[in-house]
Amino acid sequence: MEYGKLYAIGVGPGNSDFITIKAVKILSDIDIVFYPESNGKSTALNIVKEYINTNAKIIGLNFPMIKDKQKLNIEWKKSSLEIINYIKRGANCAFITLGDVSFYSTYSYIKDIIAENGYKTEIIPGITSFSACASYAGISLAEHNENVVIIPYLHNIKDIKFYLHNFESIILMKVYKDFNYLKDIILENNLIEYCTMFSNIGMENESIFKGKEILNIDKPQYFTTLIIRKTR
Amino acid sequence: MEYGKLYAIGVGPGNSDFITIKAVKILSDIDIVFYPESNGKSTALNIVKEYINTNAKIIGLNFPMIKDKQKLNIEWKKSSLEIINYIKRGANCAFITLGDVSFYSTYSYIKDIIAENGYKTEIIPGITSFSACASYAGISLAEHNENVVIIPYLHNIKDIKFYLHNFESIILMKVYKDFNYLKDIILENNLIEYCTMFSNIGMENESIFKGKEILNIDKPQYFTTLIIRKTR
Repeated sequence: MEYGKLYAIGVGPGNSDFITIKAVKILSDIDIVFYPESNGKSTALNIVKEYINTNAKIIGLNFPMIKDKQKLNIEWKKSSLEIINYIKRGANCAFITLGDVSFYSTYSYIKDIIAENGYKTEIIPGITSFSACASYAGISLAEHNENVVIIPYLHNIKDIKFYLHNFESIILMKVYKDFNYLKDIILENNLIEYCTMFSNIGMENESIFKGKEILNIDKPQYFTTLIIRKTR
Repeated sequence: MEYGKLYAIGVGPGNSDFITIKAVKILSDIDIVFYPESNGKSTALNIVKEYINTNAKIIGLNFPMIKDKQKLNIEWKKSSLEIINYIKRGANCAFITLGDVSFYSTYSYIKDIIAENGYKTEIIPGITSFSACASYAGISLAEHNENVVIIPYLHNIKDIKFYLHNFESIILMKVYKDFNYLKDIILENNLIEYCTMFSNIGMENESIFKGKEILNIDKPQYFTTLIIRKTR
């Protein structure tokens, strides 16, 4: 029997209208849909539910939010083997992930295991969270000769001054930790008026904070992105 | 009469399947579609043609590829006024642009004139060319704590060493000028094996060059992006 194929699909940042035609075509003819699950919820699944072929089987994969690298590797391997199991039986599978597949997606954890074993895979790009944020706020992220940097703040706190100095457009993902420190650095550099912060964009409880409004926030939510655009 | 609204729509990088459901819904019910035109051609229009409401009027706007800033400003202002003319008569208008609206799009030239005059606008994000490139090559652009930089090479040639040293993932747009210099810098820094270069991605004549294959190219085409990902 011929093996199936794995489609890794970026479903965009929250709103189900931000999915591509390509993703909808694949999901309407798919055998199995895998979605990353943590604490029993899946934003990605909510986005695509309406587009999935009614005969498809929908399977949650456990992507726990823990820090123990060894335990995580065991979980990711288990998930990859479950997908491979279906591919070997000829099923076409989709793995859905929030935003775009290339940026900080859960797919990166399993792609190596699947691709290294020679199974057919195809990536379907999605709308990134930062493109969606910019569009909601009506700002552009880069024009003409401007450079842009994308930084997971959480893991780059000590270098944050370097990025703020050297770039015109700074996209900070995951700002929920040490946010008061970030606010101090922004104020020190007189950048507060160039800031726009987005929480849960495209989701029901989305919110946007502009300029000084950010100073009232002490602990942003998990899905929060801060954009600093020096030229507006 | 109530004024119309302007939708700035990112149509993705070339393939008409990479447009969003949201964009398709808007185009299927739009009055006027404006597209940026240079030399009588429009890749953006080719992508969306099949989705536009058959009663809609389709109008090309002249975005000449010239460097004279003053002449360009005159053209952009003319285009903006043409759009405003229709908005004032109650027409809902779409302005389509390749890729995503937030990154280096032609919309940035006219949005200020339209928005400053208080007309209603809405931006619909699109798939960026770099997300599409990464998906075609089956690579990711960033994982976990990695930083990413997006640089229009053409305008940042003198700082290129700085970017290559300080970032894990480097996206160079518009590499068609001084490409031999770029190749030298890449070789000096032993980065050639981490390079993937994409020309005309999503279009009929698309091509991908990996690692040392890049060294055979002397003058890349206009729509060429080079991605250097140090961790693969």
